[in-house]
Amino acid sequence: MSGLRVIAGRAGATTATGVAHGLGIEPAPCAVEEFPDGELRPRVGSMIGDDVYVVAPTGPPTSSAVVELLLLLDACRRSGAARVSAVVPYFAYARQDRRGSAGEALGARVIADVLEAAGAQRVLVVDPHTTALEAMFSVPVETVTAVPTLLDAVAGDLATQSVVVAPDLGAAKLAQRVGSRLSIGVAVVRKTRTSGRTVEATEVVGDVADRAVLLVDDMVSTGATLETATRVVLAHGARPDVSVLATHGLFVGDALARLDALPLRRVVVADTVPVTVDRSWISVRSIAPVLAEAISRLHGAVRT
Amino acid sequence: MSGLRVIAGRAGATTATGVAHGLGIEPAPCAVEEFPDGELRPRVGSMIGDDVYVVAPTGPPTSSAVVELLLLLDACRRSGAARVSAVVPYFAYARQDRRGSAGEALGARVIADVLEAAGAQRVLVVDPHTTALEAMFSVPVETVTAVPTLLDAVAGDLATQSVVVAPDLGAAKLAQRVGSRLSIGVAVVRKTRTSGRTVEATEVVGDVADRAVLLVDDMVSTGATLETATRVVLAHGARPDVSVLATHGLFVGDALARLDALPLRRVVVADTVPVTVDRSWISVRSIAPVLAEAISRLHGAVRT
Amino acid sequence: MSGLRVIAGRAGATTATGVAHGLGIEPAPCAVEEFPDGELRPRVGSMIGDDVYVVAPTGPPTSSAVVELLLLLDACRRSGAARVSAVVPYFAYARQDRRGSAGEALGARVIADVLEAAGAQRVLVVDPHTTALEAMFSVPVETVTAVPTLLDAVAGDLATQSVVVAPDLGAAKLAQRVGSRLSIGVAVVRKTRTSGRTVEATEVVGDVADRAVLLVDDMVSTGATLETATRVVLAHGARPDVSVLATHGLFVGDALARLDALPLRRVVVADTVPVTVDRSWISVRSIAPVLAEAISRLHGAVRT
Amino acid sequence: MSGLRVIAGRAGATTATGVAHGLGIEPAPCAVEEFPDGELRPRVGSMIGDDVYVVAPTGPPTSSAVVELLLLLDACRRSGAARVSAVVPYFAYARQDRRGSAGEALGARVIADVLEAAGAQRVLVVDPHTTALEAMFSVPVETVTAVPTLLDAVAGDLATQSVVVAPDLGAAKLAQRVGSRLSIGVAVVRKTRTSGRTVEATEVVGDVADRAVLLVDDMVSTGATLETATRVVLAHGARPDVSVLATHGLFVGDALARLDALPLRRVVVADTVPVTVDRSWISVRSIAPVLAEAISRLHGAVRT
Amino acid sequence: MSGLRVIAGRAGATTATGVAHGLGIEPAPCAVEEFPDGELRPRVGSMIGDDVYVVAPTGPPTSSAVVELLLLLDACRRSGAARVSAVVPYFAYARQDRRGSAGEALGARVIADVLEAAGAQRVLVVDPHTTALEAMFSVPVETVTAVPTLLDAVAGDLATQSVVVAPDLGAAKLAQRVGSRLSIGVAVVRKTRTSGRTVEATEVVGDVADRAVLLVDDMVSTGATLETATRVVLAHGARPDVSVLATHGLFVGDALARLDALPLRRVVVADTVPVTVDRSWISVRSIAPVLAEAISRLHGAVRT
Amino acid sequence: MSGLRVIAGRAGATTATGVAHGLGIEPAPCAVEEFPDGELRPRVGSMIGDDVYVVAPTGPPTSSAVVELLLLLDACRRSGAARVSAVVPYFAYARQDRRGSAGEALGARVIADVLEAAGAQRVLVVDPHTTALEAMFSVPVETVTAVPTLLDAVAGDLATQSVVVAPDLGAAKLAQRVGSRLSIGVAVVRKTRTSGRTVEATEVVGDVADRAVLLVDDMVSTGATLETATRVVLAHGARPDVSVLATHGLFVGDALARLDALPLRRVVVADTVPVTVDRSWISVRSIAPVLAEAISRLHGAVRT
Repeated sequence: MSGLRVIAGRAGATTATGVAHGLGIEPAPCAVEEFPDGELRPRVGSMIGDDVYVVAPTGPPTSSAVVELLLLLDACRRSGAARVSAVVPYFAYARQDRRGSAGEALGARVIADVLEAAGAQRVLVVDPHTTALEAMFSVPVETVTAVPTLLDAVAGDLATQSVVVAPDLGAAKLAQRVGSRLSIGVAVVRKTRTSGRTVEATEVVGDVADRAVLLVDDMVSTGATLETATRVVLAHGARPDVSVLATHGLFVGDALARLDALPLRRVVVADTVPVTVDRSWISVRSIAPVLAEAISRLHGAVRT
Repeated sequence: MSGLRVIAGRAGATTATGVAHGLGIEPAPCAVEEFPDGELRPRVGSMIGDDVYVVAPTGPPTSSAVVELLLLLDACRRSGAARVSAVVPYFAYARQDRRGSAGEALGARVIADVLEAAGAQRVLVVDPHTTALEAMFSVPVETVTAVPTLLDAVAGDLATQSVVVAPDLGAAKLAQRVGSRLSIGVAVVRKTRTSGRTVEATEVVGDVADRAVLLVDDMVSTGATLETATRVVLAHGARPDVSVLATHGLFVGDALARLDALPLRRVVVADTVPVTVDRSWISVRSIAPVLAEAISRLHGAVRT
Repeated sequence: MSGLRVIAGRAGATTATGVAHGLGIEPAPCAVEEFPDGELRPRVGSMIGDDVYVVAPTGPPTSSAVVELLLLLDACRRSGAARVSAVVPYFAYARQDRRGSAGEALGARVIADVLEAAGAQRVLVVDPHTTALEAMFSVPVETVTAVPTLLDAVAGDLATQSVVVAPDLGAAKLAQRVGSRLSIGVAVVRKTRTSGRTVEATEVVGDVADRAVLLVDDMVSTGATLETATRVVLAHGARPDVSVLATHGLFVGDALARLDALPLRRVVVADTVPVTVDRSWISVRSIAPVLAEAISRLHGAVRT
Repeated sequence: MSGLRVIAGRAGATTATGVAHGLGIEPAPCAVEEFPDGELRPRVGSMIGDDVYVVAPTGPPTSSAVVELLLLLDACRRSGAARVSAVVPYFAYARQDRRGSAGEALGARVIADVLEAAGAQRVLVVDPHTTALEAMFSVPVETVTAVPTLLDAVAGDLATQSVVVAPDLGAAKLAQRVGSRLSIGVAVVRKTRTSGRTVEATEVVGDVADRAVLLVDDMVSTGATLETATRVVLAHGARPDVSVLATHGLFVGDALARLDALPLRRVVVADTVPVTVDRSWISVRSIAPVLAEAISRLHGAVRT
Repeated sequence: MSGLRVIAGRAGATTATGVAHGLGIEPAPCAVEEFPDGELRPRVGSMIGDDVYVVAPTGPPTSSAVVELLLLLDACRRSGAARVSAVVPYFAYARQDRRGSAGEALGARVIADVLEAAGAQRVLVVDPHTTALEAMFSVPVETVTAVPTLLDAVAGDLATQSVVVAPDLGAAKLAQRVGSRLSIGVAVVRKTRTSGRTVEATEVVGDVADRAVLLVDDMVSTGATLETATRVVLAHGARPDVSVLATHGLFVGDALARLDALPLRRVVVADTVPVTVDRSWISVRSIAPVLAEAISRLHGAVRT
Repeated sequence: MSGLRVIAGRAGATTATGVAHGLGIEPAPCAVEEFPDGELRPRVGSMIGDDVYVVAPTGPPTSSAVVELLLLLDACRRSGAARVSAVVPYFAYARQDRRGSAGEALGARVIADVLEAAGAQRVLVVDPHTTALEAMFSVPVETVTAVPTLLDAVAGDLATQSVVVAPDLGAAKLAQRVGSRLSIGVAVVRKTRTSGRTVEATEVVGDVADRAVLLVDDMVSTGATLETATRVVLAHGARPDVSVLATHGLFVGDALARLDALPLRRVVVADTVPVTVDRSWISVRSIAPVLAEAISRLHGAVRT
């Protein structure tokens, strides 16, 4: 298994190029045709005996991204790849790691199952929403993190007297990790999620008064969680100087309208999904170097 | 396994209601929530011990329909269904039953594999594009046809001196079947498909001069095949009186513009995908009775 | 599939009897022989066409309990059972739902995989440590809870001015649920787990001063977590009147010595593992009624 | 797949060191932590692209050894091993290769299935109790033998006028093999096994009078079989000079008490399970060279 | 699952009819067409929801019988059977339960695997050559025996002063079982099999002088084993009055010529394969009642 | 995976030798023993770490060829092969790619499934009857063609004023391909197949009068299709000068008698099955070079 190949469909093309260059190669050729009825047809080159990494974030449009990834995996295995790894910088459906109520599907497990059915022999993900994601796969899952990369972007621009704030309990561990790295205090907003789209904040644990705020979370989706957390910490006396650090920047729904209304200094995200929105306060950092390092390790090129 | 359940997501709701009523029951409750990031979350009721039929055409938007079907199947099996059958009136990706050239995916097989991975224990399809579709599944596939239903719609309105025309070789067998049923002659247009979107007609085998034309095919997609075939038969002297009989009416891309320009008497399709376009020359026949009969048989209620 | 059978190995015998009686039947005969070299050999009766529920907690001795369950499942399927469900009141290895560091195993997934390999077609668990447990199984997992049962035992004996305390972040949601049910306040002890056996407490979030304490957690293992939490809340002024509510009472290692030293009013646990220790402050509630209700539902006997 | 790795849990550590040294490498680092509740947690190093051999006898405590092996296999595959082979010098449950009576489990097959489920891609065993063991695995099984090694230990110390005795029919082929190698006569004790623990001898086929006895069997478990056979041959006039040759020395139950009472010259066993009992008449030979040779061959390092 | 169906291809037709009648039903219709190129095409009726038993011995022509069984199983599952059981009265390749030397195939396991791949969900066999056969299947295997049936045929015609003789070690247990049932002595011929077709006898263990001989074995194949055993016992003084009891009567190769030369009183076999040879000394007993009883039990019709 | 091995059973021996020589190696040793009862036992050499190609056409006797291939695949995988590819020059049962009527088996899928069950990790076929064959396999299928090889044989001996004739619709695409390569016209005979063995011709589409005929098809089986087509084109005025080009030359049933009666110039076939019939008008071209090229590519030896 000598040949290292990095390949991507449509959404992952930029990242794949960055990853390939980080590995000192060019991305392997790949075209994905979309027919008028919405069917997709990928075409890749010969991959006989190769160790192939298919870069495919599953951000919006989620369904299309998932199906495209399935077809790409199949094309690679049928083209003779010795091993096919799915590199999924943003892993959709990770929040459906349990059935919230009877009658629901286990979305995360479904995605895991169909990726394996389509030929994924290994998976590489960035900061998945659930730490149990790897346990939903039969095949090995390698998890890497964008947080150090994002911290580098934040560290030089940190307001004095800042506090790291987790917008909910789920982000508390991340906040502690960030606080520890930056040597500043941590606070947690405890909320009650009442439905899939609306949240209801309750209280702040920790001291935020007169402090600039660094909100941390794994993703920015509709911005609702951030909006609520911001309003809560402002109500508790925080300074109207809010930065956000999050791995995945989806900015869907009313996200921009919501966030435009907040006193944001900056929102730092990685490019685990292509960021197509345009705001001065958004900073995007490339995840490619982190992925390239992981792939290099998995390919075995840098064994010591 | 006593309980017979018919359930549907969004695209299959109307058909499922028709099917259920044909079986003398109500469709089982099912809601599919769509989040701002495009993720879907179905919710079904308890199905313990039931024989469940999930009605889900995979027409446009294809990817979304496929993912919704995967989640629905998973929801049903985890809710205790004794057996889950996927009822897929229009089966997408059936044209990808082989790799047209090296490096492509086997789309039809991928869809088959992921449906099984998500829990489909049996599949019911209507006039699939490839007769080999059932051989791509491990689980039993039941194939039913809309052609008699469509013929009923056509039979009473047939122009005198008509000819059944297959727009390409792939439709030749269907044309012979229809011609035999209607006791009229058959002709075949031989084309060379030069790409996924454009076709190039060549010749007509059989006599079409001074005849009204009944074009038959398994589906109307962009209308390009029909347009070409019509122009060819007109050039060979056919009367400008063209009817079309096709099971699946997708009408994607420029279909309406193309077809509006043709001397169409009528286009008869089944509702294997929801037909949302509005033209006087489109007649839609319900596939629900055919599906209800098949499900009744598969459920075992009518064993003699 | 008409016959409902409840069967158990050695550890689950008492529970199985309770479950069977709750269902109005007798437990099916089953003997497990243990040879001098530690190999086990179960023997069950004929189960042709039956819907079999194998009750087998996987508490200490954990490995032996796991292997016994594997053999029991195999014996049932080879004896003709139409469906075999593993009823695992206490599910071991649930904490290994992710690899804490590179090189570890995914214990929870391993147990899930081998149960399926040995023939489990459905799983029934009580208050598993991880909510993502069901996503590690291909087969449906039914989760039930002992909390209402335990609350019934606690409700009549609640000290005035009590506070519900979660001994760590992982128990916070459970504490909120209990607090809400009992209409009393909630506090959380935030700890840092420094190794598998020792914990280091940090702070209390919420007011505990002058209050009796109701510690809640999913399990009592070595008692270390409870001991630490108790010392922390006492240091913050709580009254030396501590009750504990936990589903699984393992009481392993130095648990009794640790707990004897605390001002315990009572420790209420379910019998998801056989409780063999003897202390006046331990109350054990039977999980059998909850399991019987769930099995009755899964068997389909009570469909409405 | 370049890296050859030999790794072991607790029971296989000594053997693994011997095997590794025989291959000119060091055993790969591996630690297995045992928690107070009996759960195990292995930790191995990175194994990306390696050809890994997990040495793990499944002798007593059998259940714990089996579960530890399952976890080790999983840890290796998730750490990136290109291929994981289970080296099981003593394979437990091999006697359960059929159901002795209805209602039993097929223990040998269960162990085979769960090893594969946990990631074993190949298996290497020493003198398994049943020759059909390999047919219970989907993956290739390599069987090696300790008999030549044990014979080397016996050959120089053979009493004049000896006879090889099989203590039961199952050992008859082994006895013939040994007799042929040593060029001495063979006799067989025919017994009726009346339960798992007691045996009842009947007769001796072949001449043992005035001869020293070399009893051969695949394993010494409780010593009951050997005790009975010895008493029978003594009753038939054999000299009170008995040697035993057996691959697996378990010495469980009352084995030592039983054997101490016999006129034993020596008992020669391999270290397929760690021999922790201490008697002057026990000689232990290392199986490591045989395993090292087999692994070298399987790894492909010595292809000619 | 209400409908009980018994079906057969070509070789099993007679047995299937007997089995069906024993169950009070008619065999389900089934035709197997053979094309000039040797391909087979079975056709069965609708089996929706049925419990189907496919009767198919795999005697000579073995390969054709195996392929026919595979196709029949597939036809049944795709025709809607709720459960498909393979009833294989004579199970070919059972002797290949281990690789006799490196480089061979595991024929028994291959047949087991492909039967499962083609849809067998349960297997029913008669006196398989290896007791470990069931451990090669994932699905449950039910083993029944023809020996009591054959003994009934022999019992009334037993010569005075008979001895039961096992022609080799492999038949020793069977001989003991028969001897015990008939209350007469047992002897064993020990042979060395030097190749697949020739055997070399060595000695007789037990007394045969002046006795009529009842040779017992699981099968009569080429008759070579019986011929050798007969010559050996005659040389040891047995009376030239030999009966044979064997479940499977294949009579292949030079079997008839060999057996015609022996002083045979009779050869009693079951019809687990169709017996087409014609000799006065061959008695054939139907296995149908034994199979019918087993199927009745497996179908659940006679649960008590 | 360094070692390239080409191996064959009985039917593929000649082709395997040609393939091996084309690759610059010798075929690996392999013997297949056939016992008097028809069971087969292959024996191969050690294949540890090798990339093995098992050459095995499945022509008549079809069943025996299929079972032999299954055993060979198993022998190779259990002998340590790193990858086992089935090279099936003629793939039997390809016509059973769908159920012609209810109750039939899906023969093509059954063969695909059992090859995978026996260890095929990749498949290489020549001109399979159905283009959807690859979609019936989970593993990658590589399809190569003998047509250029056959055309080379035909090109130099082409009668002036020839026409390429497809004997039925299924061969129309092949005829167009051949006509295009030879720059001569194409005609199609449209037939109605009324049963598996008899055909009924109807008409000729295209001009054949006064032309020599080059009939093209994927295979010559019983010759019935060719005979009918020849009679039809002669009746339409073709010259009695008929050549045939077909990949697979089975010549079963009455093929020779049928073809002897036709005005055949020559029949050119490849040796995808051994051609054992002897006629002056049969020319056989070796498929070995085409297979060698494909294997070289798949093995990765010629990556550019």
